[in-house]
Amino acid sequence: MKISARNMLEGTVENVELGAVMASIKIKVESPGLITALITKESAQNLGLKEGDTVTAIVKATEVMVGKE
Amino acid sequence: MKISARNMLEGTVENVELGAVMASIKIKVESPGLITALITKESAQNLGLKEGDTVTAIVKATEVMVGKE
Amino acid sequence: MKISARNMLEGTVENVELGAVMASIKIKVESPGLITALITKESAQNLGLKEGDTVTAIVKATEVMVGKE
Amino acid sequence: MKISARNMLEGTVENVELGAVMASIKIKVESPGLITALITKESAQNLGLKEGDTVTAIVKATEVMVGKE
Amino acid sequence: MKISARNMLEGTVENVELGAVMASIKIKVESPGLITALITKESAQNLGLKEGDTVTAIVKATEVMVGKE
Amino acid sequence: MKISARNMLEGTVENVELGAVMASIKIKVESPGLITALITKESAQNLGLKEGDTVTAIVKATEVMVGKE
Repeated sequence: MKISARNMLEGTVENVELGAVMASIKIKVESPGLITALITKESAQNLGLKEGDTVTAIVKATEVMVGKE
Repeated sequence: MKISARNMLEGTVENVELGAVMASIKIKVESPGLITALITKESAQNLGLKEGDTVTAIVKATEVMVGKE
Repeated sequence: MKISARNMLEGTVENVELGAVMASIKIKVESPGLITALITKESAQNLGLKEGDTVTAIVKATEVMVGKE
Repeated sequence: MKISARNMLEGTVENVELGAVMASIKIKVESPGLITALITKESAQNLGLKEGDTVTAIVKATEVMVGKE
Repeated sequence: MKISARNMLEGTVENVELGAVMASIKIKVESPGLITALITKESAQNLGLKEGDTVTAIVKATEVMVGKE
Repeated sequence: MKISARNMLEGTVENVELGAVMASIKIKVESPGLITALITKESAQNLGLKEGDTVTAIVKATEVMVGKE
């Protein structure tokens, strides 16, 4: 399935931290270093996310802001 | 001002396309290639965004999804 | 690719309306009737969305609110 | 009060799971089966959400992505 | 209907600007001055939004970031 | 750095509540009373958020809905 989200960054899971209902996933990508994704714990477990997994960080374009010095 | 958004990707504006109320900003970043940000036209004009500007794409961690093959 | 977004609703594209940078996609799903998705025009064109396409509306759980009478 | 969010799916609360600051609400809707909403625990408690409640899952159109095989 | 969104700011519509598929609504609130809401044009028309209307700007808590000097 | 997010409300941190991976920040602002921000615990700790801090609640315009009686 192709999805409409414009932004895809491939990387490797560096850390999975589970809370009660949420999970924090650290994804090591090439250039900006680390991407943090906050997803449901259920989702992290369904995908079986663990350190070393190759994953893609996905972001809808309407969620991206622009900063300028 | 430091902000709580976890994800910051530095890059260069490659294209600014203005709609009636929205604007699409293409930001060239090192590794994933291109990031698309959909912001208000007003915001794009207030920041004076134009090709070649050094900018930062900013994404709140709760907006990032994870895909896995 | 499996993605972490919790909510998937299959349906049929009923209408595609293109703006300058955004596109409005009406998706007919079985029970609530119609789902509206606002995505970039570029994305709508990349997916080649047109009336009658079988598609899936995808929503991250952190974006769902709850209303109660 | 009428609100601008385009997407409303009526259903029944099937499960409420409380974390420290977040709550996961499973809402049984007619056609896609189950919708997951991640809201604040405070909000879940203010609405008094419990199994069997009739509720509405509400999603802003800009938060809906489109997937296509 | 009560909804789970934590943040409600009452104000007055100061300006409605319609694009092809999106609409920009300026809402004058007491203290921070002006709130901008980007909603679908369809929604703006369904609510019949016009200058002078008393409305409420509604924001889900997971969408709020924190900045600190 | 100036950012594209349209909505900025200055206030004072009234309460910080840490979960396992998320944090709930209550910000007292002048007119609507209290704004709730759900951010990562990591972010709350990086900013050193504590009661009495002067902060800014930041919201992207595409995240604001409009309610009308």
